[in-house]
Amino acid sequence: MKSRIWTAALLVIGDEILSGRTQDKNVSQVASWLNVQGIRLREVRVVADVEDDIIAAANALRERYDYLFTTGGIGPTHDDITVDALAKALGVSVVIHPEARAKLEHYYETRGGMNEGRLRMARVPEGASLIPNHYSGAPGIRVGNVFIMAGVPHITAGMLDALTGTLEGGDPVLSTQVGCWVAESEIATLLLTTERAHEGSQIGSYPFFREGRIGCNFVIRSTSQSVLDACAAELAAGLNAGGWPAIMGGI
Amino acid sequence: MKSRIWTAALLVIGDEILSGRTQDKNVSQVASWLNVQGIRLREVRVVADVEDDIIAAANALRERYDYLFTTGGIGPTHDDITVDALAKALGVSVVIHPEARAKLEHYYETRGGMNEGRLRMARVPEGASLIPNHYSGAPGIRVGNVFIMAGVPHITAGMLDALTGTLEGGDPVLSTQVGCWVAESEIATLLLTTERAHEGSQIGSYPFFREGRIGCNFVIRSTSQSVLDACAAELAAGLNAGGWPAIMGGI
Repeated sequence: MKSRIWTAALLVIGDEILSGRTQDKNVSQVASWLNVQGIRLREVRVVADVEDDIIAAANALRERYDYLFTTGGIGPTHDDITVDALAKALGVSVVIHPEARAKLEHYYETRGGMNEGRLRMARVPEGASLIPNHYSGAPGIRVGNVFIMAGVPHITAGMLDALTGTLEGGDPVLSTQVGCWVAESEIATLLLTTERAHEGSQIGSYPFFREGRIGCNFVIRSTSQSVLDACAAELAAGLNAGGWPAIMGGI
Repeated sequence: MKSRIWTAALLVIGDEILSGRTQDKNVSQVASWLNVQGIRLREVRVVADVEDDIIAAANALRERYDYLFTTGGIGPTHDDITVDALAKALGVSVVIHPEARAKLEHYYETRGGMNEGRLRMARVPEGASLIPNHYSGAPGIRVGNVFIMAGVPHITAGMLDALTGTLEGGDPVLSTQVGCWVAESEIATLLLTTERAHEGSQIGSYPFFREGRIGCNFVIRSTSQSVLDACAAELAAGLNAGGWPAIMGGI
């Protein structure tokens, strides 16, 4: 029986990504983590710290996909408006979460004490639960199918770790790689016919230029190990037959 | 006189970003390049190689912003469907661009010759002009306010270079940086009051943990050099007054 496909979107919130100052690292780590949970990342949006833009994107994405993850905008400063915007998107008010407040009070006890900015990080949309954060005082937030996480990648990583195995997903996507010293544009037809011959497989091609030579790695993906193996074997056979030795596992 | 603000969006097309295999590098390079052109990047979306998703995102973004840039999906393989999807979004047909075809024929003359996959890269939405690509045979494409570029970052960089100075923009955004060994959450109020006191300024805070200490860089942005300088000076004075020595230029 084919299991249903679970989907997610990621909403990255923050002027720092759109200004070009900060190179985003959350998209690839959230995507990789979701694969292991059996959930496919289907769309990403990056918006600035502008309330209307956050609300519009959040509502479009949380309705379309099973899960919505957000990163960024939950810090102590005035431009951190993610919680307020998402509460408005969900039509609920913002409340102080007592457990978050207690965690922050404990964390800042030896670090200068609580203040207005730090208390902001205990604010959550009404009805929310917390996602543990082992690195600093401020927790992530879950409300309905929305998961509100930090912008700092290693804190996000910790929050994902805390969520591992807790979300319903389907079959994880398996992948394998075949490498070859060939120009992608030489073998476009081979890729197409091989993929079509193996239902449930998908072939991505990743060209590179290395050691003065042009090559390409082909990543085959499927939720079925047998489809994966058959597709990779046929691709390798096709490359070999064309005079381009295939390197199983990639270059 | 205040010049009008020019805006852009970036649409990143490709399963490789959403699968987590490839870390995107185009968002930050497009953002930084746009800043210099006096154009603000306001939104980014990442969608898979799915025609309906590309069409929906492209139409939403090209109508809302002055310019839409796309990266990815213009290679020789069957999953490269960007040109077809954007032509549908624009309501025009796909044609072979004679100049692109000539460039590709020349490029591949000594590289195995043309084939079906390579000819795909000469296809453009009707009415399009070309964006030069000095690194490989396949050009980028401009059609209306839409700029269709490669997914491979160094090829995208070359296309941006070719576009430098050709797009109408406003005043470029200037920035300066003030660093301090302070926790962002200690001085949230200072940031807010300083930003509000200098109309047309914006302060972003970038906390870090380095050499065993917590610090933060504050990036001040404005289109006016005098606003920028005044805002940075007041922030530095506030930090110094609080007992946290400010380091002009950042840490």
